[in-house]
Amino acid sequence: MQNFVYHVPTIVYFGKGQVEHIGELAASIGRKALLVYGGGSIKQNGIYDAVIKQLKKCKIAYTELAGVDPNPRITSVRAGVAICREEKCDLIIPIGGGSVIDCAKVIAASVNYSGDPWDVVLDPSKVTDVLPIITVLTIAATGSEMDYCAVISNLETNDKAEFDHVKVIPKYSILDPTYTQTVSAYQTAAGVADIMSHVFEVYFKKCGDTYIQDQFMEGILRTCIRYGIRAVENPDDYDARANLMWASSWAINGMISCGKSGAWVCHPIEHEISAYYDVTHGVGLAIILPHWMRYILDDAIVDVFVQYGVNVWGIDSSFLPYEIANLAIDKTEAYFRQLKIPATLREIGIKDQSMFEIMAEKAVRGGLAKAYHPLDKQDVVKILEAAF
Amino acid sequence: MQNFVYHVPTIVYFGKGQVEHIGELAASIGRKALLVYGGGSIKQNGIYDAVIKQLKKCKIAYTELAGVDPNPRITSVRAGVAICREEKCDLIIPIGGGSVIDCAKVIAASVNYSGDPWDVVLDPSKVTDVLPIITVLTIAATGSEMDYCAVISNLETNDKAEFDHVKVIPKYSILDPTYTQTVSAYQTAAGVADIMSHVFEVYFKKCGDTYIQDQFMEGILRTCIRYGIRAVENPDDYDARANLMWASSWAINGMISCGKSGAWVCHPIEHEISAYYDVTHGVGLAIILPHWMRYILDDAIVDVFVQYGVNVWGIDSSFLPYEIANLAIDKTEAYFRQLKIPATLREIGIKDQSMFEIMAEKAVRGGLAKAYHPLDKQDVVKILEAAF
Repeated sequence: MQNFVYHVPTIVYFGKGQVEHIGELAASIGRKALLVYGGGSIKQNGIYDAVIKQLKKCKIAYTELAGVDPNPRITSVRAGVAICREEKCDLIIPIGGGSVIDCAKVIAASVNYSGDPWDVVLDPSKVTDVLPIITVLTIAATGSEMDYCAVISNLETNDKAEFDHVKVIPKYSILDPTYTQTVSAYQTAAGVADIMSHVFEVYFKKCGDTYIQDQFMEGILRTCIRYGIRAVENPDDYDARANLMWASSWAINGMISCGKSGAWVCHPIEHEISAYYDVTHGVGLAIILPHWMRYILDDAIVDVFVQYGVNVWGIDSSFLPYEIANLAIDKTEAYFRQLKIPATLREIGIKDQSMFEIMAEKAVRGGLAKAYHPLDKQDVVKILEAAF
Repeated sequence: MQNFVYHVPTIVYFGKGQVEHIGELAASIGRKALLVYGGGSIKQNGIYDAVIKQLKKCKIAYTELAGVDPNPRITSVRAGVAICREEKCDLIIPIGGGSVIDCAKVIAASVNYSGDPWDVVLDPSKVTDVLPIITVLTIAATGSEMDYCAVISNLETNDKAEFDHVKVIPKYSILDPTYTQTVSAYQTAAGVADIMSHVFEVYFKKCGDTYIQDQFMEGILRTCIRYGIRAVENPDDYDARANLMWASSWAINGMISCGKSGAWVCHPIEHEISAYYDVTHGVGLAIILPHWMRYILDDAIVDVFVQYGVNVWGIDSSFLPYEIANLAIDKTEAYFRQLKIPATLREIGIKDQSMFEIMAEKAVRGGLAKAYHPLDKQDVVKILEAAF
């Protein structure tokens, strides 16, 4: 097992009605909050009101940044930073999914940096003091509620960049599964694919003996498979929502990658797809994942695919290794279809392959050469072609 | 799923040679450390020297409390508190297993309390400021390196009490699996039984849908079963030691019991055994566990035993439920025997049953009436008789 450092200090309040604690939590670390949210669905489903009620009760002042887009933009970050400075906010409360939380993280990291926040995204060493964050999660997907990553898009340059800094990990996160019951079947499915992708990016490599990590990963995958379809078919299924929500946090908070570190592959590729076509992140991932799996399957890693097939999909271990591996990939692909996620790039509106070369070139810059199974530009083009 | 709060802020440095960080970590939170350790094996195997070298390099002064016993005593805590006050220590570094770390936790919590530390053990609300703790773990067992519990014995009163306080969770823990390679086969086996017991105490109850928690627990149990025997038979097996060490932390740091809380049973019973007879904690647990399992097995919980048997021991799911359940318990008991752990109370030197009534009476005070399957005094006597 490789050496590692593990540190996940976020305090999670999980379950029905946990928002009742947000006022006291906010009061313990600040006096004026910037609320960050997206298109306003939180105003229809009562989550906004529930938060405000608690903040008022604890005399926490607040101001707002609304309208954060999926694939959150650096323009939203800039707007948030300006509000924080003008209104002297000392605390940020994102209410939403990964996009909203990611946006809040980069705002929190940029308020005390005098230059443009995009510089901070590209160079996290510019981060000094960071505003504390309390998240209120409304979709199980990115795991941003318990990790120190953010992904921000710059539409001027068609760039989508990952920002990592230990200081932006949320101080508190409120995870109420009932808040995800109003998430559409499509977004629920995309979230499940996103959670599974976080596991796959770590799982399909070899770093010596990582038995216990693999046990945790397979447990998260089985949870996604069992409850993903339940949540899609019955949005009010609390147990399905709860298991998926907790799975989303553990899939990416750093625990599963302890001793199994290394460059990710599908995320850099998908980031280019959504940078150019603005597709839903989890959908882009679900389309790419099976083709990536088929592309990297070889004698060096077939045993990991066998382990995946047997332990996660219950495939008979007496089959031949490549039979099990290919069947496992087929089952993964079929599961995404069962969740009604589009299966090809064409289905999500990408009409031709004209951008594949440039997307591949930019994806490779995301570190694909350092992956367990390194990919170069032509490899990525082939995966994109297979997924077309 | 029940509501819960999750918070495990300990920063873990895991792997070979991670002790090289202890100087800088100590320097970030203090200037003078109290080193706490047991019988001195750390001086033979080089761990003591490795720690001292790093502390000197970073100019951290230190003083020592040596000779902490297994089942650590309140007298050691009192001695440690006196040294901390006299020498103005602002940091505690336990080097050892659960006993040494538990002792350090109660010292840390008692230094700023003017009365007797035993008062603090019995009433954690007396805790105010706590000295920070950096653990150097030398045995995989109690999980004290990443939790906020301590168990302390008072030989004057034959009491063994559990102390819980959020502030005593270690700030940093150094987990180097090579440090456990000199642990005897007997103590290694006892550690494995202890880890498994922490999972069993949480696993064998029903609290609604806790699928993902059960996945994590079954993964930890499979890890223990796979690597316990390897570590016992080949002490230098690094991967076995590493997997067991990481399993020990996750079995009790609070993650698996999220949404599956409730009173423990075997620990209060075992605490009475070791309070009266000073046996190795994990051995006492291994003796009690199978008899407790047989005692609580009924129609209400047989499905959990079936899940355990099928998922952890690979028993054919087409067998009848009670067949699977009883076979799973038999396999658990047989595994402990395979680890060469004594199987009866008689084998560990308990010559008669004269203390069973008083032990049962005291164990019940540990909250057994509130367990998922509540036990009264006579139930505990029957379990002790079965284990005799």
